[in-house]
Amino acid sequence: MPKRVDHEERHRRIAEALWRIAGARGLDGVGLRDIAAEAGISLGQLQHYFASKDEMLVVTLDHLSAVADRRIRERLGGLPTAPSPRRVLHEVAAELLPLDAKRRSGNLVQVAYFARAVHHERLRRHAQQGIPALCALFAAQLREAVARGEVAEGIDPDGEAMVLYALTDGLMSTTLLGVIPPEEALRLVDAHLDRLFVDQDTP
Amino acid sequence: MPKRVDHEERHRRIAEALWRIAGARGLDGVGLRDIAAEAGISLGQLQHYFASKDEMLVVTLDHLSAVADRRIRERLGGLPTAPSPRRVLHEVAAELLPLDAKRRSGNLVQVAYFARAVHHERLRRHAQQGIPALCALFAAQLREAVARGEVAEGIDPDGEAMVLYALTDGLMSTTLLGVIPPEEALRLVDAHLDRLFVDQDTP
Repeated sequence: MPKRVDHEERHRRIAEALWRIAGARGLDGVGLRDIAAEAGISLGQLQHYFASKDEMLVVTLDHLSAVADRRIRERLGGLPTAPSPRRVLHEVAAELLPLDAKRRSGNLVQVAYFARAVHHERLRRHAQQGIPALCALFAAQLREAVARGEVAEGIDPDGEAMVLYALTDGLMSTTLLGVIPPEEALRLVDAHLDRLFVDQDTP
Repeated sequence: MPKRVDHEERHRRIAEALWRIAGARGLDGVGLRDIAAEAGISLGQLQHYFASKDEMLVVTLDHLSAVADRRIRERLGGLPTAPSPRRVLHEVAAELLPLDAKRRSGNLVQVAYFARAVHHERLRRHAQQGIPALCALFAAQLREAVARGEVAEGIDPDGEAMVLYALTDGLMSTTLLGVIPPEEALRLVDAHLDRLFVDQDTP
């Protein structure tokens, strides 16, 4: 029987190689050959899957999102009772911050993506789907919190969802620049959530 | 009399050339030769002033900050009465967002800096001075607002200053990615300020 290539496995390996390079030194000046070497495959094999660094970036970001989703679900699934909206918002925000080496290297891939996407419209589409999807999740939790009487009824869930996303993103950047430690970033997100939530359910 | 070179003028010209390139296509793969050409000087002349792209980036950011400072001072100085803390915070935040072509290209220089600084400790020093200085300005305005009875006494001015900075920075990124229009970013900053300020002084 001929050896069959597991395409999904290879996609994952390439994504992880790009992730490691972006985390260690950024993608500035990094070529397809470097990425193939890091993934332990030939340039030809790499090109069979991806024509450009940008295509790879998008696949790596999808892979990162899937890993983050799984981590959040596992963390929330391990709780004794169904998590409150306050707790869900805290956990998702914590997943977006560089609180450990894995999240930090994920953030560095995002930075590499961001710096390229501001100049390439096609790349921006990824953010234009991903960020609103995340904000919709935040807004749904805030609506649930309104229904439970945990936040003021007058709030604008969609606006507050974008504020929470942008705040977390800005704190991520500020942490990567070494201006504040990651724990302070999370503390400020929690202080912001404290202000929103009348009935505090401190995680 | 021999022709004297105006060093400050040349510094400014080089900074503006880098600014234009970063705004138009980013600094990925851009060499000193490209920057010299854009500034209309020889590579040798450029190297007389700067040994690397990173040194130039820092000088360009200083130049950008000076331009932004002047714009803010002019705008606030043109008001009939001394501006309230609420108004100062609004104006400074507005200067950080891509609300016109000039601010947008300034933001793109910041993005180029950010993507390099996360991997180069020496470059991060610029942010490690600049961001706390901006936050100190925000915190001073918030303390003044507390003294005037315009915000709740219990707030943490330093924490709130960092939250305002990070929120504005995150909204800037989200705007550059084309997820929200710049006017929406400013509206969300104002909504956040509305929440902080008891006595609203809508600008």
